[in-house]
Amino acid sequence: VKVEVVAVGTELLLGQIANTNARWISERLAEVGADVEFHQTVGDNVTRIVEALRSAAGRADVVIVTGGLGPTQDDITRDALAQLLGVSMERRPDLVELLRERFRAFGHGEMPVSNLRQADVPVGARYIVPERGTAPGLVAALPGGATIYCVPGVPTEMQEMLEGTVLPELRASTSATIASRVLRCTGIGESRVAELVADLYEATTNPSIAFLATGGEVKVRITAKAPSTSEADRAIAPIAEEVAGRLGDVVFTRDDEELHEVVVRLLRERGRTLACAESITGGGVAERVTRVPGASAVFRGGAVVYTPDAKVDVLGVPPEVIERDGVVSEACARAMAAGARRLFGADVALALTGAAGPEPHGGVEPGTVWLALEADDLTHARRVDLTGERDRIRRWVEQAGLDLVRRYLEGRPLPASGRPI
Amino acid sequence: VKVEVVAVGTELLLGQIANTNARWISERLAEVGADVEFHQTVGDNVTRIVEALRSAAGRADVVIVTGGLGPTQDDITRDALAQLLGVSMERRPDLVELLRERFRAFGHGEMPVSNLRQADVPVGARYIVPERGTAPGLVAALPGGATIYCVPGVPTEMQEMLEGTVLPELRASTSATIASRVLRCTGIGESRVAELVADLYEATTNPSIAFLATGGEVKVRITAKAPSTSEADRAIAPIAEEVAGRLGDVVFTRDDEELHEVVVRLLRERGRTLACAESITGGGVAERVTRVPGASAVFRGGAVVYTPDAKVDVLGVPPEVIERDGVVSEACARAMAAGARRLFGADVALALTGAAGPEPHGGVEPGTVWLALEADDLTHARRVDLTGERDRIRRWVEQAGLDLVRRYLEGRPLPASGRPI
Repeated sequence: VKVEVVAVGTELLLGQIANTNARWISERLAEVGADVEFHQTVGDNVTRIVEALRSAAGRADVVIVTGGLGPTQDDITRDALAQLLGVSMERRPDLVELLRERFRAFGHGEMPVSNLRQADVPVGARYIVPERGTAPGLVAALPGGATIYCVPGVPTEMQEMLEGTVLPELRASTSATIASRVLRCTGIGESRVAELVADLYEATTNPSIAFLATGGEVKVRITAKAPSTSEADRAIAPIAEEVAGRLGDVVFTRDDEELHEVVVRLLRERGRTLACAESITGGGVAERVTRVPGASAVFRGGAVVYTPDAKVDVLGVPPEVIERDGVVSEACARAMAAGARRLFGADVALALTGAAGPEPHGGVEPGTVWLALEADDLTHARRVDLTGERDRIRRWVEQAGLDLVRRYLEGRPLPASGRPI
Repeated sequence: VKVEVVAVGTELLLGQIANTNARWISERLAEVGADVEFHQTVGDNVTRIVEALRSAAGRADVVIVTGGLGPTQDDITRDALAQLLGVSMERRPDLVELLRERFRAFGHGEMPVSNLRQADVPVGARYIVPERGTAPGLVAALPGGATIYCVPGVPTEMQEMLEGTVLPELRASTSATIASRVLRCTGIGESRVAELVADLYEATTNPSIAFLATGGEVKVRITAKAPSTSEADRAIAPIAEEVAGRLGDVVFTRDDEELHEVVVRLLRERGRTLACAESITGGGVAERVTRVPGASAVFRGGAVVYTPDAKVDVLGVPPEVIERDGVVSEACARAMAAGARRLFGADVALALTGAAGPEPHGGVEPGTVWLALEADDLTHARRVDLTGERDRIRRWVEQAGLDLVRRYLEGRPLPASGRPI
């Protein structure tokens, strides 16, 4: 099935935001075996939206439109859809009721009358009830045969409707299934990953292998197309096994989990608790760990010690360590980990200290980082040296720190200073 | 001048990468006053690239094409351009020489013969010499009047050619500039914002007003087109003033700053320091504040107290408060703020405690949140009630917490419990 993705929003054409929706949708469409030949982006202008929809519907079986379903005057996707269909709009009482309720539940008081536009549906179209937001989605079949799905531009609301309605309907209409398995690794570069599996990459097109490097990790996606999901899974399994075997312990998941999800899962499985002492990452490790529902069972807490005084006062880092070695040092990292473990009464503590830039920090160049891990059976410290901008350095340090905990909990060798992360 | 941006690359249609080039280019084009009405993305397929170029050239004065100029077999933008122009290709000896030199300079040894494809130029087109990479850009004028610029897809190489050639040529051909100003608000819904400025929205198209709601805030962008930037700015100023006046103290920036940037700026300006006590947000507020370079001058640190024990042991919350009122309570939030202020020796402390879900937390329904702020001249607590998923709740609580600090530092009224956030 051919699918075209059309994004509506002048903010995209002005370059105020990137079209990350198109990327997310395309990735999902690839998974269900749909072919995407074009993306289009168009501004908040009815004539041009109709033009974009018409050309998309002329060459694709399904068109997915994002954006322009909100309550304000510049949200005009539903008007463009009505115009394309050549129908008028009808206000649906059930949607009016839903909007009023939603508005009250959000604590916004009485709904402005203008919001009722969101209850308008082109005659003959059906709507998708929003679970989170207030913008209903719209679905219409064109006389020519193409089906048009309009979903909100807010990523969470778009994703909810794709996963709840659009993708299931697409899956039901195609005979082949695409299944994929994602291995994720950290502590290894993309080109090294590619090199290690080059012959597999060359030898197989179904399953196919793809690499993607993002934010301190490399994803290896193995995708198979088959008549059923179980057949696709059976085709993937041996390749995944082989890839995982070659890559070794840099693989932290064979199931597309986030690194912080893996850490929380391992803590639960092993009945251990974690605490953090963060300087360079400013709370980023704790924030990631606590994204996982139920993290409170295994995560005791963290100290964000952003000044030398806080390191001394809150975590009991000896002032002479800071005087002698500075705040970016092995001794400081170890003392921070020990302090956090004691303060929070955790089994395992992770400390992260370094210079994120852009300016040197305590005489230390940006990118210089010390990590330490303390548990009852082990203490370990490593230095890592990173390049790049502040945000990139902080993200990579989070990855290196979480991976240290992951390796410890899995009983794997802990990387020494200087090893790439 | 009307410009259309066409991205070439199957990896974009598979969702492996986001089209960040389109965003970057569009932002630059807005600055030079060009009108962008459409973006297109197309895969590595000559027929479809020609189709995309033809429709772009049919409606725009200038088409900027990114990607498909590399040395491999799937790099076929130059073939598509030749086909569109109806001309053959000629190998340019000067480009052959340049490629050979470049290849040697990169230490890659002798150049594979296949790379010579990059020296091919459609008859009648001119080329842009690459400063960094090996892919020359191409420029061709269509008989119909449109000019097509083809530049590499690698962002640094694309940017070099845009800044060195494409944008200067565009600037020379246009007389208008576009400038815009972004106000950002929190503590108010998008539809309420739209309602408050509806008449301005209706009355003015230059400057124009647009709204965008994302993650606990609403952006209002005012954009003007004028012969010069200073004239555009002068056209924007009174509208921005009027909009800001009507929206009142929910506006946290008139200059498109992030809320955490505003907080760090205000702390600096007022010579105050901040500490956090985070439960529900798990370190997210500290992480955001420390994204700002130089935050260490004003941010002392934070305690992520994710268990009742940690609240007692680290921040000195009285155990009887937790027993009597629970961890999601006004008394606990106030005690957390007081504890963090004392522990970190900060002027201002912010505490955030609540249930993020999906399960109730300490008998409290997800979305129930208490915030507290303590400073030497004031203490304040407020309850907020949120709906939605864990991630959304956490993000909105961060916003509400940071905004409490912003309002305190600006000397504005602090919102009471129950006020929307």
